[in-house]
Amino acid sequence: MRITLVNPNTTRAMTEAAGRAARAVAAPGTVVTAVEPATGPAAVESHHDAALAVPGVLAEVAAAPDADGFVLACFGDPGLDAAREVASGPVVGIAEAALHTATLLGRGFSVVTTLPRMIGRTEELVRRYGCADACRGVRACDVPVLDVSGSYDAVLDACAAALAADGSDVLVLGCAGMAELAAAVSAELGVPVVDGVAAATKLVEGLVAQGLRTSRRSEYAPVPGLVRALSKEH
Amino acid sequence: MRITLVNPNTTRAMTEAAGRAARAVAAPGTVVTAVEPATGPAAVESHHDAALAVPGVLAEVAAAPDADGFVLACFGDPGLDAAREVASGPVVGIAEAALHTATLLGRGFSVVTTLPRMIGRTEELVRRYGCADACRGVRACDVPVLDVSGSYDAVLDACAAALAADGSDVLVLGCAGMAELAAAVSAELGVPVVDGVAAATKLVEGLVAQGLRTSRRSEYAPVPGLVRALSKEH
Amino acid sequence: MRITLVNPNTTRAMTEAAGRAARAVAAPGTVVTAVEPATGPAAVESHHDAALAVPGVLAEVAAAPDADGFVLACFGDPGLDAAREVASGPVVGIAEAALHTATLLGRGFSVVTTLPRMIGRTEELVRRYGCADACRGVRACDVPVLDVSGSYDAVLDACAAALAADGSDVLVLGCAGMAELAAAVSAELGVPVVDGVAAATKLVEGLVAQGLRTSRRSEYAPVPGLVRALSKEH
Amino acid sequence: MRITLVNPNTTRAMTEAAGRAARAVAAPGTVVTAVEPATGPAAVESHHDAALAVPGVLAEVAAAPDADGFVLACFGDPGLDAAREVASGPVVGIAEAALHTATLLGRGFSVVTTLPRMIGRTEELVRRYGCADACRGVRACDVPVLDVSGSYDAVLDACAAALAADGSDVLVLGCAGMAELAAAVSAELGVPVVDGVAAATKLVEGLVAQGLRTSRRSEYAPVPGLVRALSKEH
Amino acid sequence: MRITLVNPNTTRAMTEAAGRAARAVAAPGTVVTAVEPATGPAAVESHHDAALAVPGVLAEVAAAPDADGFVLACFGDPGLDAAREVASGPVVGIAEAALHTATLLGRGFSVVTTLPRMIGRTEELVRRYGCADACRGVRACDVPVLDVSGSYDAVLDACAAALAADGSDVLVLGCAGMAELAAAVSAELGVPVVDGVAAATKLVEGLVAQGLRTSRRSEYAPVPGLVRALSKEH
Amino acid sequence: MRITLVNPNTTRAMTEAAGRAARAVAAPGTVVTAVEPATGPAAVESHHDAALAVPGVLAEVAAAPDADGFVLACFGDPGLDAAREVASGPVVGIAEAALHTATLLGRGFSVVTTLPRMIGRTEELVRRYGCADACRGVRACDVPVLDVSGSYDAVLDACAAALAADGSDVLVLGCAGMAELAAAVSAELGVPVVDGVAAATKLVEGLVAQGLRTSRRSEYAPVPGLVRALSKEH
Repeated sequence: MRITLVNPNTTRAMTEAAGRAARAVAAPGTVVTAVEPATGPAAVESHHDAALAVPGVLAEVAAAPDADGFVLACFGDPGLDAAREVASGPVVGIAEAALHTATLLGRGFSVVTTLPRMIGRTEELVRRYGCADACRGVRACDVPVLDVSGSYDAVLDACAAALAADGSDVLVLGCAGMAELAAAVSAELGVPVVDGVAAATKLVEGLVAQGLRTSRRSEYAPVPGLVRALSKEH
Repeated sequence: MRITLVNPNTTRAMTEAAGRAARAVAAPGTVVTAVEPATGPAAVESHHDAALAVPGVLAEVAAAPDADGFVLACFGDPGLDAAREVASGPVVGIAEAALHTATLLGRGFSVVTTLPRMIGRTEELVRRYGCADACRGVRACDVPVLDVSGSYDAVLDACAAALAADGSDVLVLGCAGMAELAAAVSAELGVPVVDGVAAATKLVEGLVAQGLRTSRRSEYAPVPGLVRALSKEH
Repeated sequence: MRITLVNPNTTRAMTEAAGRAARAVAAPGTVVTAVEPATGPAAVESHHDAALAVPGVLAEVAAAPDADGFVLACFGDPGLDAAREVASGPVVGIAEAALHTATLLGRGFSVVTTLPRMIGRTEELVRRYGCADACRGVRACDVPVLDVSGSYDAVLDACAAALAADGSDVLVLGCAGMAELAAAVSAELGVPVVDGVAAATKLVEGLVAQGLRTSRRSEYAPVPGLVRALSKEH
Repeated sequence: MRITLVNPNTTRAMTEAAGRAARAVAAPGTVVTAVEPATGPAAVESHHDAALAVPGVLAEVAAAPDADGFVLACFGDPGLDAAREVASGPVVGIAEAALHTATLLGRGFSVVTTLPRMIGRTEELVRRYGCADACRGVRACDVPVLDVSGSYDAVLDACAAALAADGSDVLVLGCAGMAELAAAVSAELGVPVVDGVAAATKLVEGLVAQGLRTSRRSEYAPVPGLVRALSKEH
Repeated sequence: MRITLVNPNTTRAMTEAAGRAARAVAAPGTVVTAVEPATGPAAVESHHDAALAVPGVLAEVAAAPDADGFVLACFGDPGLDAAREVASGPVVGIAEAALHTATLLGRGFSVVTTLPRMIGRTEELVRRYGCADACRGVRACDVPVLDVSGSYDAVLDACAAALAADGSDVLVLGCAGMAELAAAVSAELGVPVVDGVAAATKLVEGLVAQGLRTSRRSEYAPVPGLVRALSKEH
Repeated sequence: MRITLVNPNTTRAMTEAAGRAARAVAAPGTVVTAVEPATGPAAVESHHDAALAVPGVLAEVAAAPDADGFVLACFGDPGLDAAREVASGPVVGIAEAALHTATLLGRGFSVVTTLPRMIGRTEELVRRYGCADACRGVRACDVPVLDVSGSYDAVLDACAAALAADGSDVLVLGCAGMAELAAAVSAELGVPVVDGVAAATKLVEGLVAQGLRTSRRSEYAPVPGLVRALSKEH
């Protein structure tokens, strides 16, 4: 099985770390290819960043017509709906993956994100994915995306604060850059800690194993006039 | 007062029609400039189209630093959050404008959109803007975006069907291309018919008159590293 | 355009202040007439007060058959549905106006009301108008309605406390009596501050400019037996 | 135990029928006094009617300081919050009583109201009382309030239609005037049929027996300045 | 009228206390029989406990074919849906009874339960019964079920803390074992305090008086193959 | 990896079919053991059936202390919370698995269940798992649980009817007995069809691969007094 992981942030080291996190949980026989767009922001830290990242993400998805499935490795799930229209197989975002997974592990989870300005979008995704009842809180560790993989203490502190304040029993790490911190935080705090990269990788694997892919009935059908749409190409 | 209306569809005739619809309701002293991006799809009829339209929309917003406010003239409100980060004044999307306005006019409204594949996104926006209780139904007239301004009968039929089936007392036209049909449909069916272009124009005018613009506290603060984000420019 | 602003509180000075707030944002050509009922409570500070205020409010609405639209200037929006049945044009309450407007300016707002006993009703309106996701909190400054226009410090303190505790990025002033404090609070705290009187005035202006008024289909149709209903007149 | 039933409709025959319905289920020792206001609409069939009925309802509540509890016998529950501030004991509206009671009897109920224009308000109450998940539909039998007690066939037909269309297993009669039809409809259709007058009477009895009455903490505390509020008495 | 109260906890002293609480509010002529299952956990303090308690509860319900109605006296309402299928009359759980009753008495209530691990289930029931808007908080007094009747101070402290933190105006005691503490807590704190045992007893009495019982249409119809289902009897 | 699949229905042939469905999608190296309780109903077709099935289900879970994870193979997810307290690894119910999985594949799904009396419980689970926005409808094929695996035409007809009426783009099969029909229905109707047995198997596999299991913090901690609870063993 071939899974293409697309990192909307164009920073190669971050892509490589996400690839490692995916491969660490993949089943034997699953090949994970981790890529980032040729253009776009180095890190997605605003709505503006996300908007500029999406065309490159879609180009990467379109460039992998042989992939069996796709992981979209940025917690805002930018371009997820569009990727589903274009992709050759199922697409799972790491936010939706992490949030659905967290609901299987306890009564209520907290999300720890990077910068405070990401909290609103995260809460919107929580509602969008039907997790409002299960989410006890969203808080920021106040570390930028590209620094977060090296900021274990700040992430741990924010996680501990969330547990104490929210009455939650599960934690969700709200950034692809935190992927490799999950195990240590879980060991330290004694609760399940969900990393979206790993969670999405397993969900995509599961969908492919079940022969399931995005419905082509109506909304996600092949795009009418894709050629025409690109006639004044961006 | 200067309002810049950005039409995410790159079809000039559609921009001109939206500009007319805005000017028809603008107060004396309001100057409406209607533009479309230099690149992007001719018509936004899928998530993929919307994603490719947004960078151009943001460029237009950034190119109008003297505007007092902005109308985003595509019913999916593509790029609205990002535009708020970048814009020199308040930004209102025509979907949010139409939906909020409809709630002031009756108990429950129906939305008529273009193609059936737009229904899911429209329902998502209805929930996003807090209008789930007020929305009685969303249906498509099954006419593409660029043809809809000339398809009065199809729009009227879908509107009449919505009223009959949904028990609604207000109608919302779910595409900028329908703007100039609202008055005739209302006269024919005897209920208020809300066009988002007009509604958004008046909301922006109102915000500017009140001295209100997007909050700069946290989520919509100026984008950190905007320069950096563009360093691998799309 | 003629807008009649009805202040459900029978205190003339409060009516005059609300009239000033409305005129300060009205477009050239809009004439605002501010009135209060001949009978009813001096200030609406309970459900009982609101109930006794409503018949007088409806009488004022009925007494202005030439008005193009109406502002109902009490944050509980008392009698709004009934006024819509009776009025010659669209009617907008200052609570619905302020809440919808606030959603256009940021991710989440806080409301500051007068007395603690108003909090429950305010929260109910927040839900009624579809703003539960956008509202981060409602708190009271603990100043009675008739004193609040002169209590800038108490209002400012409550606003500052709301920003700090709720993580909100927009403020809503929850009483017509606070109308003239909005600009100063905004300047002091650096976030948009929405006054419902101004917001409602612009919404009514916008509806009239678009030719929109309350639907006469079903619920808000002319009242059957209005004469009969009044036969044992209150 | 003394229960005062206040019928917001000023039609004496309707009050008497509601009194009979209440007494038919009251426990031994419960004395039900059924009254209607001295002024107000003969029948409450619009928001305007409801608004004019409320001051008289409150006067009746205030005029019964020895009552142990109150039933508010109009399905729109007009003035319920205000009555709670004023009353000497607990107050239950027949809509809230019927809706809560219906949830104890099955999975999902339908409500049958009088005129189509009442549907919107009924749906709003369904949400207000937390019954949105349990309510499968609201429909009108299209008979005015004062005629409905004599229109068994129309009510039965609407009830049968609701069962067939909504997949409900319980029915709620949405008007005090239907109170004496409940048993026959239930016998005919084979499902529980809830009449709000009977339901509210038993709820009030239950509250009084438990020593429970409206909280005086904050929102429903005695009205500050009740004297002042009445100084420009309506 | 004969009401059978089934205490899912198999501790006889707790059953007797619940019986006393029910009889203290029952109308003249109502005979309350309080029973506990022959088998099952001494106290229900986990999902596992609840699951093992339910078969015995159902056996008690089935063993009382002459009862007019049933109270299920454990705040998790374990087995409520199944009991409705089996019972000869209406069945009301003490959680649903307490929560619905609390909504009649104020704007927002807090629930005080026993152990912290019960909070999640209690919040789930709050949503299940449509009380999410009315519930301001759920907290634990951290006393096991069998000790709580003798732990007035701990319960009182938790109730006082809830009032202070939640802004609630009504309290709900979240365990049958707290039934006989309600009056004292209410006297001490000055707000209505709802005990589910008393509340359910009055609701069942009310349903029986109205001739209402669980619908037999579809979901709660007599169980198909009840004999077959028991063929490999547990 | 060892996964124990527990079929709450005590019919061995059904267990074997569920085991086949699980193994068909399991990764190399995953060993699926499919069991049913020693006692309990042959088929779970009511709340009563479910209640009697749960103690046996829990005994099977407790009897597999070496399992890495568990699938609970009945669409009502009976005993899921209790199983999580007892189990040696993560537990996933087939309803929650199917519903979460369906949300990854399209905009809105329909569920097809067995008997009409299961619809209410299914809708409750849809809300419980946060899928109310994504679920377009639930309908029954009107075939009992033990016959459904051989009733392809009835299931197909119900699925086709759901697609036509609900506007859905994904289907969910609402019974473990339908597991082996999914592929054929999907091939026939051209939309993704989710079987909960396969979906849950992959979710459990994914959780185990990620090192995730039920949180032991608070609600799902080891049961206090498990020995005591069983002292009057059922």
